[in-house]
Amino acid sequence: MDKIKKRLGRRPGSSDTKDKILGAAQALFARDGFEHTTIRAIAEEIDVDPALIAHYFGNKQELFIAAMAPSQKIPHKIATELAGDPETLGFRLATLFVSLLESKATNHVVVAALRAAVRMPGALSLMKAVIVHPILKVFKDSGLDEPELRATLVQSQLVGVIMARYILKVEPMASIPSDDLITYLTPTLQRYLTGDLHNKKEGI
Amino acid sequence: MDKIKKRLGRRPGSSDTKDKILGAAQALFARDGFEHTTIRAIAEEIDVDPALIAHYFGNKQELFIAAMAPSQKIPHKIATELAGDPETLGFRLATLFVSLLESKATNHVVVAALRAAVRMPGALSLMKAVIVHPILKVFKDSGLDEPELRATLVQSQLVGVIMARYILKVEPMASIPSDDLITYLTPTLQRYLTGDLHNKKEGI
Repeated sequence: MDKIKKRLGRRPGSSDTKDKILGAAQALFARDGFEHTTIRAIAEEIDVDPALIAHYFGNKQELFIAAMAPSQKIPHKIATELAGDPETLGFRLATLFVSLLESKATNHVVVAALRAAVRMPGALSLMKAVIVHPILKVFKDSGLDEPELRATLVQSQLVGVIMARYILKVEPMASIPSDDLITYLTPTLQRYLTGDLHNKKEGI
Repeated sequence: MDKIKKRLGRRPGSSDTKDKILGAAQALFARDGFEHTTIRAIAEEIDVDPALIAHYFGNKQELFIAAMAPSQKIPHKIATELAGDPETLGFRLATLFVSLLESKATNHVVVAALRAAVRMPGALSLMKAVIVHPILKVFKDSGLDEPELRATLVQSQLVGVIMARYILKVEPMASIPSDDLITYLTPTLQRYLTGDLHNKKEGI
């Protein structure tokens, strides 16, 4: 390990290597799930020594936590949208959601987090701490009434799309063009965000 | 095995035992997932010999398929609602969904099916064959326009609620009273079922 450290110390490109490792880890955790992904498989994917991955990130669990880090940016992006015009909030949040999920890097992180959360209490706690609760908080800070109820309804619709479109890949959901999906989701999100939730008839 | 068969042949109560086995299997598959559930654990749960479970249902995979059978009734229940008044369809489908999921037996079946589908291609194929595709078919038979798009949007919202409320158990979704949840979901489902899906502004 000391030899590896020495070599790394001399290499200016090591943050590129770290990024490559994280990208491969995100892709494999998303595709195969946490339990079926090995450090060795990630190393093979990008042709590095498994010991290098261990050196940078520790064990598989620590690598998973590092690989999930980009999801921490999501609540902040939502906060930015919540601060804008409430009348177009549904559209802007649908657009943000679809663009995040259609970007390969974020897609891998979100899919890997959700897949792992279904199986492992530890991953579920991580997902709650890093995504679910911070989103509740940005809703609370937004000045919307009933912020937690609105946040949980929005999450329920979006988690369902992630499941159906990207994890279970059921048709026709998996093949809906991005722009159409944004259109279908906009009124749902708009009502959850600013509508009268306690009236069954609203919007019909 | 022959001895067991002989004994079973004389027992009038054997269909009760089968039901008990299936009930325990559904509960454990839902709670622990397919991979972490063993025939032995199911047998212990209801205090029967593991060999009896093998005798009735074969291996764990065959038991899982048998345990998922009640989900076959769901598309028919949806078809019945689709045949009624379109103006109240959102409310009636939300009510059917919530009542199915608040019933312990159906909840276990649906949660177990969805958890397994995330992990195992075989379970996903089973879920598609038994629930997803039959639901698409009852939508097509209902006379609604764009039936497959409407079905997939409805499924996306409902899968999200199952995930958030019953699998990930995120708050406040997990604690919303049933009647309130029906109210929150009704306009969403009504629009997906009978609204103009191609208009971002509908219902705002």
